[in-house]
Amino acid sequence: MNKSIKVFAPATVANVGPGFDVLGFALNDIGDELEVSMTSDDKIRINKIEGYEDLPTDPGQNVVGIAIRALLQELNLDQGFEITIKKRVMPGSGLGSSASSSAAAVYAANVLLGNPFSKRELVKFAMEGERASSGKAHADNVAPSLLGGFTLVRSYGPLDVVSLQYPKNMFATVVHPQIEVKTADSKRILKKEVSLEVAISQWGNVAGLVAGLASGDFDLIGRSLEDHIIEPVRSVLIPGYAGAKHQAMASGALGCSISGSGPSIFALSEGKTTAKKIAKAFEGYYSELNIDHRVYISDINPEGAKVVKVSDSVTGGSRKTEVRSRKVQ
Amino acid sequence: MNKSIKVFAPATVANVGPGFDVLGFALNDIGDELEVSMTSDDKIRINKIEGYEDLPTDPGQNVVGIAIRALLQELNLDQGFEITIKKRVMPGSGLGSSASSSAAAVYAANVLLGNPFSKRELVKFAMEGERASSGKAHADNVAPSLLGGFTLVRSYGPLDVVSLQYPKNMFATVVHPQIEVKTADSKRILKKEVSLEVAISQWGNVAGLVAGLASGDFDLIGRSLEDHIIEPVRSVLIPGYAGAKHQAMASGALGCSISGSGPSIFALSEGKTTAKKIAKAFEGYYSELNIDHRVYISDINPEGAKVVKVSDSVTGGSRKTEVRSRKVQ
Repeated sequence: MNKSIKVFAPATVANVGPGFDVLGFALNDIGDELEVSMTSDDKIRINKIEGYEDLPTDPGQNVVGIAIRALLQELNLDQGFEITIKKRVMPGSGLGSSASSSAAAVYAANVLLGNPFSKRELVKFAMEGERASSGKAHADNVAPSLLGGFTLVRSYGPLDVVSLQYPKNMFATVVHPQIEVKTADSKRILKKEVSLEVAISQWGNVAGLVAGLASGDFDLIGRSLEDHIIEPVRSVLIPGYAGAKHQAMASGALGCSISGSGPSIFALSEGKTTAKKIAKAFEGYYSELNIDHRVYISDINPEGAKVVKVSDSVTGGSRKTEVRSRKVQ
Repeated sequence: MNKSIKVFAPATVANVGPGFDVLGFALNDIGDELEVSMTSDDKIRINKIEGYEDLPTDPGQNVVGIAIRALLQELNLDQGFEITIKKRVMPGSGLGSSASSSAAAVYAANVLLGNPFSKRELVKFAMEGERASSGKAHADNVAPSLLGGFTLVRSYGPLDVVSLQYPKNMFATVVHPQIEVKTADSKRILKKEVSLEVAISQWGNVAGLVAGLASGDFDLIGRSLEDHIIEPVRSVLIPGYAGAKHQAMASGALGCSISGSGPSIFALSEGKTTAKKIAKAFEGYYSELNIDHRVYISDINPEGAKVVKVSDSVTGGSRKTEVRSRKVQ
């Protein structure tokens, strides 16, 4: 019973242009890894956090412990876990850092417990990590991190997560200018009311985006990646946003918008060649601005959270699938 | 050159639950018919309006004349037409009555002129009929009336009309309780501002509806047919709305909402058997309330505006395709 597994849950892009609070998709390669094993007691112990060591190891303060607790509570179970977190998604990047950890945590615990829940059912437990991290139990990052692909959170009451169809040859290029945007700031500046007229144009674009994804109409996807509500307000917090977007569009992007609440920026494209061209443009642009940055190229990750290594002390056997890291030079 | 054609353009259901001002679909069988021929002068003459004879025959006052004028203007052409209108869609029904006439008018003129425009290009001319009729150049009725199927008006600037995928076995049951709802009233009572929170739930439902239509997921279509913005306000103008909706849902409808700005009510269902059951329930319900009503059952009309008869005085030939009227007994 002393099985240890290593799991990976991807970083994610939430909002996706007009789809504020409802749409999200999963990236490849970049994501958090957790090594988790069950213990013989009922304690959750976070032994180590690699990467961002100032995050709390107290399981009551870390989204990993909080999300697993939510899962155990539903099962009415006292079970201990030993956890090492390999944090690769930078907190505050706008790439679903806390969601990646929360998703990996509940996914690992579920596998070790013999899969009492489906991946879809795990979303609500991972959301408790989001509640702890941001004050609101968002699902738009944890859903794609767990399920992979392009997801829609249609409703929270009841929770209704839909996996959307999307074209195979779609790529995302993401740039993370490494400046801090306080999520609280990016939330506070949003208005609580919007004009009906602007709201109508927003759901017209959401409808166009979902239709374009379903039919593989890249041109429609591009035309629909307009956000008249959030982008105009939040983009002012991101240095160089307008210029970066201009660079992406000039390099052939279908559209370009803010990832999550920023500061990361994503662009969608048809095919990897264009995605690379956009990456190069982002790279050059932020280098010239002298702003530290990271650039990622990724197709849409179709599988979400996954086991990358199993070590079983009973058999001594070990399966391993290495997760490669892909970065632009 | 003295060809006369008879065209049909279907009645339509606009808004479709959460898709206020952007979604619409075409019905079968019910729609307006126009008999149109070109004249040797530059006058547009409306000879007769069958069905609703109090509508204006002055082409400058009738959407038919106004829409054709918009088309001719784009071609920089002075061409006369003689028109007989067979009006089958009751004005003020919420079933796109003026749109049906406008769509039929521009479609007929375009055919007689040798198809200088595609059906999609005709939308903007038919919209001028809508502008004259309601004060706003809406496209959510004229687009499905011209193109058929399920349409999205993603944007007005520039105009972007998208034909959506939808499942074959989907049926609409429509009840038109014959009470007058002034469109001006139904517009005035809408608030100009909505809360961001409610707007988010609305575009979540729009996304779910489009995704469900694309993947043929009837259950998702049903869950997404929620409208938290318009229905709560406008439904109070429709006598018996809550009861009618309850009847539809109890009869197996996927969802039920207001058609256009009402008073017609539509329900969607999987398969004709359920659609008939809903029709019977609507029928019984409004009979008991002693409110005059009409009930229609229709699958989604895939083709939109069409020629039903061509008479050519040169050859004396005549092709005729009769449009049947389908009504619940």
